[in-house]
Amino acid sequence: MIAKKPQDSLTIMNELVLPNDTNMLHNLMGGRLLHWMDIAAAISAQKHCNSLAVTVSVDSVSFKHSIKLGDVVTIEARVSRAFTTSVEVRMDVWAENVPSGTRVKSNEAYYTFVALDAAGNKLPVPELVPGTPAEQVLYDGALRRRQLRLILDGKLKPNDATELKALFVEKE
Amino acid sequence: MIAKKPQDSLTIMNELVLPNDTNMLHNLMGGRLLHWMDIAAAISAQKHCNSLAVTVSVDSVSFKHSIKLGDVVTIEARVSRAFTTSVEVRMDVWAENVPSGTRVKSNEAYYTFVALDAAGNKLPVPELVPGTPAEQVLYDGALRRRQLRLILDGKLKPNDATELKALFVEKE
Amino acid sequence: MIAKKPQDSLTIMNELVLPNDTNMLHNLMGGRLLHWMDIAAAISAQKHCNSLAVTVSVDSVSFKHSIKLGDVVTIEARVSRAFTTSVEVRMDVWAENVPSGTRVKSNEAYYTFVALDAAGNKLPVPELVPGTPAEQVLYDGALRRRQLRLILDGKLKPNDATELKALFVEKE
Amino acid sequence: MIAKKPQDSLTIMNELVLPNDTNMLHNLMGGRLLHWMDIAAAISAQKHCNSLAVTVSVDSVSFKHSIKLGDVVTIEARVSRAFTTSVEVRMDVWAENVPSGTRVKSNEAYYTFVALDAAGNKLPVPELVPGTPAEQVLYDGALRRRQLRLILDGKLKPNDATELKALFVEKE
Amino acid sequence: MIAKKPQDSLTIMNELVLPNDTNMLHNLMGGRLLHWMDIAAAISAQKHCNSLAVTVSVDSVSFKHSIKLGDVVTIEARVSRAFTTSVEVRMDVWAENVPSGTRVKSNEAYYTFVALDAAGNKLPVPELVPGTPAEQVLYDGALRRRQLRLILDGKLKPNDATELKALFVEKE
Amino acid sequence: MIAKKPQDSLTIMNELVLPNDTNMLHNLMGGRLLHWMDIAAAISAQKHCNSLAVTVSVDSVSFKHSIKLGDVVTIEARVSRAFTTSVEVRMDVWAENVPSGTRVKSNEAYYTFVALDAAGNKLPVPELVPGTPAEQVLYDGALRRRQLRLILDGKLKPNDATELKALFVEKE
Repeated sequence: MIAKKPQDSLTIMNELVLPNDTNMLHNLMGGRLLHWMDIAAAISAQKHCNSLAVTVSVDSVSFKHSIKLGDVVTIEARVSRAFTTSVEVRMDVWAENVPSGTRVKSNEAYYTFVALDAAGNKLPVPELVPGTPAEQVLYDGALRRRQLRLILDGKLKPNDATELKALFVEKE
Repeated sequence: MIAKKPQDSLTIMNELVLPNDTNMLHNLMGGRLLHWMDIAAAISAQKHCNSLAVTVSVDSVSFKHSIKLGDVVTIEARVSRAFTTSVEVRMDVWAENVPSGTRVKSNEAYYTFVALDAAGNKLPVPELVPGTPAEQVLYDGALRRRQLRLILDGKLKPNDATELKALFVEKE
Repeated sequence: MIAKKPQDSLTIMNELVLPNDTNMLHNLMGGRLLHWMDIAAAISAQKHCNSLAVTVSVDSVSFKHSIKLGDVVTIEARVSRAFTTSVEVRMDVWAENVPSGTRVKSNEAYYTFVALDAAGNKLPVPELVPGTPAEQVLYDGALRRRQLRLILDGKLKPNDATELKALFVEKE
Repeated sequence: MIAKKPQDSLTIMNELVLPNDTNMLHNLMGGRLLHWMDIAAAISAQKHCNSLAVTVSVDSVSFKHSIKLGDVVTIEARVSRAFTTSVEVRMDVWAENVPSGTRVKSNEAYYTFVALDAAGNKLPVPELVPGTPAEQVLYDGALRRRQLRLILDGKLKPNDATELKALFVEKE
Repeated sequence: MIAKKPQDSLTIMNELVLPNDTNMLHNLMGGRLLHWMDIAAAISAQKHCNSLAVTVSVDSVSFKHSIKLGDVVTIEARVSRAFTTSVEVRMDVWAENVPSGTRVKSNEAYYTFVALDAAGNKLPVPELVPGTPAEQVLYDGALRRRQLRLILDGKLKPNDATELKALFVEKE
Repeated sequence: MIAKKPQDSLTIMNELVLPNDTNMLHNLMGGRLLHWMDIAAAISAQKHCNSLAVTVSVDSVSFKHSIKLGDVVTIEARVSRAFTTSVEVRMDVWAENVPSGTRVKSNEAYYTFVALDAAGNKLPVPELVPGTPAEQVLYDGALRRRQLRLILDGKLKPNDATELKALFVEKE
C-alpha cells in the first residue's frame, strides 16, 4: 500500500440550500448539514482507502452562523490521519450567498471512518503523509482527538490519555 | 416560566430505513441518522422551550452497530438540562429488525439547542428539574459536557474547566 | 404463537411538516399524512406479527383540521384485532404547534395488513387480546369494520353482514 | 358558474416505482400510492373547481395486487359528482410492467375535496353533468358513498341514510 | 416485431411543482423539468420497445416561460421515430396554473433511448409508422436531428450530414 | 462591472449515486444527472453574475457510459462566455468508482443562464475573459453554439448563422 497525501483524498461538495432543508426561520437545519458532511467525508475516506468506508464516529460540531435558504454550502473534505484500519477526515465548511458574494466559514469538523471490504470485514488502510505545516498540525492533533473519542466512548480511562491529559495538567 | 421535567419534552420517533438511506453494504449511513436525530431533538427542545429552537452543537457520536435496510430506528429524545437560553437534549437510539424482534441500543447522544423567537432573537428557557436518579445523573453530567463543548469550541481554557479537569487530575 | 396485547405493537411516530409536504395554503397534504400513517401502521403490524406485513386496505379517513407547515404530527399505532393472517391497526393522529403547545386530535384511522414470509406467502398471526375496556371496544368494532371492508370490496353481500346490518335495521 | 363534464377534470399521472417507494419484498408501499393518488385527485378537483382544493376525505381503498419495483403506475382521476362546496374524485389505477406489457387494474378509489379561496374560505363549485351511462352510474353512487362518509364520520345516523339503508333492508 | 404507431407509446405525466423544485424566485428549476421529462420519455420508449430503455442523448431544450410554484406540469411523450436499436421520443410540455386555468406551452423536446435486455445488451426495436401528417413531419425531421446529434457528438463530419447540410447551403 | 475569468466561477460538485437515482439496471438515470448539472451550472452562473441566474437553455447532451449505483459523479462547471445578459456555462462530468479508483469522463455539456434581479428583470453581466488557450477555444466556440441554439429555437435563419454555416459549406 502506497502512502497518500491529504490532497489525494480531497473532495469538494457544493450543495444548494432548498426549502426542505430549512426550519421555520428559513435557516438550514443542523442535521441536514451533518448528513451532507457525512457523504462528503465518506467519499474522501474511500478515495484514501480505495475501499468502502463507513462512519464510525462524528466529533462534536458547533453551528455558529445561520445558513439561509438559497445559500450554497461548500464542503472540503480530506483525510487528516490514517490509523490501522480507520481514517480521520477533516472538513472545512463555508456558506455563501452567491449573488452577493458573501462567504463565511461555517464549520470545521472531523468524522472517522473504517475501511471495509464488500463482505464488511475491516481492511488495513494506506498511511497518510502530511505535506504542508498546516497538514502536520492536523496530523498531530488527530492523536489527541482520538484519545478524546476513546474516552467519550468509554474505551480509554482519562488518566491513560497522556496526550489529552497534558492539556489539563501541564498547561499553566 | 414554569420549570419542566424531562418527561415533558419526551419525543419518540420511529423511522424505517429505506434504500436511499443506505450505503453499498445496505447499512444506514451515519449522516442520515444524525439528520433524523436532529429533527427529533429539535422537536424535544421546542416542547421544553415553547418556542422555536435551533441546533447550536452536536456532541460526538459513535456508531458501533451497523443498522440494516428495513430496520426500524427508534429515537427517544428528552431535555437533560436547561441553561439560560439553551437546552441540552439527550437521545437514546435503538435499531430493531422488527420481524425477528432483534433490538440493539445503537447510540446515546447529546445535541444542544438555543431558543429563538420568530425574529431570531434568543429567548430565556424554562428550568429543567430532574426527577429520577437517572435524570439527575444526566443533569449533573451536562455541566461537564458543556465545559467540553466550550473547550472544543475555543471559548474556555482547559484549566478553567474545573468539572472536566477533575476527571484528569484527581482520579486515581 | 403467543397472544399479544395492543401495547406490544405500540408504535409512535413524530414527523415535522416540511415545505414539500404542504400545498399552496401551507397546509399538510392529505396524501402525505396517509403515507406516514402507512409506515407507522406497517411497523406496528410487523411488531405484532413478527414478520413482514403489507397493507391490504385503508379504511376511509377524514381530514377535519388543517395541519400547518412546521407543525409536528404524532401518530400512535397499535393492533386492534388479529384475524387469521391479517391484523387491523388503529391509529390516533395529533397535530401540534410545538412552540405554542396547541395540540389537536387530527384523525382516527384503521389500516389492515397481511403477514407475509420473505417469499411473499401469507402467515398465521398471533391472537390479539384486548386489555382495557377501550381496547375491548376497538376489538369488538373490528368485526363490523371488517364486514364493511368486505362489502365495499364486493366480497360480501350486505344481507350477510349481520353485524353491520344490525346498525341499519335494528336501531331505533 | 358553468357546469362541467367528468372529461374536463381528467388528470392522468404516470409514476415509476423507485427503490424508496418499496418495502423489503420490493413491492410498492400502499401509503406511497395513496400519496400519488392524492396529488392526482387534487389536480383533478382544482381543474373542476378552478380554485384551490384540499382533501377532506379518502374512501376506503383495498390493495389487491402487489406492484413491483420498476413498474409504472397510471392514475386516471376525474370528478364524479359535485356537491355545494365539495367534489368527489373517482380514480382508476393501473400497474404496468412496461417491458413485458403486462398491465393490471390495481385500484378504484374516491377522494373528496373542498374548494377554497386563497384565504382558506370555502367556495361554491360548478355542477358536474355526467355524460355517458358509466358516468351516470358513478354520479348516482356518489350519494350513497356520501352517506357512508357521513355515518363513518359520525355526522349522520344510519337510519337517516336512506340511500344506504336500502342496501341492507330492501335487498333480498 | 410488429410496427407501432406514436399513439402506442403515448405517456402522459402530470407533476405538481413543489417548494423543493423551485429557485429563489419560486420558479421551477430547469434541471428538475429535465428530470421529469427523462422519466416520461423513458416510459414512452419502453412502451414502444417492450424492453428496458436507457437515455443516450438529450437534444437541446430551451426554457422560455417561467413555471411557478403550485403549477401543474403536463408532459406528453411519444416515440417519433425508431432506428435500429434506438428510438427518438418527442415531448410536448405545458405548464398550467390550475385554479385560473391559464395554460402555456412550455417546451418541445427530443430525448433518444437505446433498448436493452436485462443484461444490458442492445436490442432491435419495432419500426415506428407515422399516421397523421403531423407525425410524418416529426418522423422526417428525426433524420435531420439524428445527423445533428452525430455531428455534435463528433461521430459524423458536417459535410456528410446531407440532410442537415441542405438547411445551410440550399435554402435561399 | 469587473470582467471575470473562468476560474472565478468554478463550481465543483460531487454526488453519490443512490438507489433512487438509478434504473432497473442499477445505472444512473440521465435525467437525474441533468438535474445535478443544472444545480452546479446555476451556482457557477450566479458566481459570475453576482445575481440570481435561471436556466434558459440546455445544449444537447449525450450519455456514453453507464454510471453505476455507488459511483461518485464529479461535475466541474465554469462560465465559458458572457453575452449581454446571459452566460454560457461549460461542464465536465466524471464518474468514479471510488474504491477501485476507476474514473471515466462521462460528459461535456453547455447550459445557458440569464441573470435576473429579485424582481425577475434581466441584468447585464460581467464580461468573461479567457486566460488559457483551452479557455480561448471554449470562448470562441460559444458563438457557434449560440447560433445553433438560436436556429434550433427558431430565432435565427440557418443562412444568417455565418459561424455555423461555415462548418457546412466551407469545409472540404
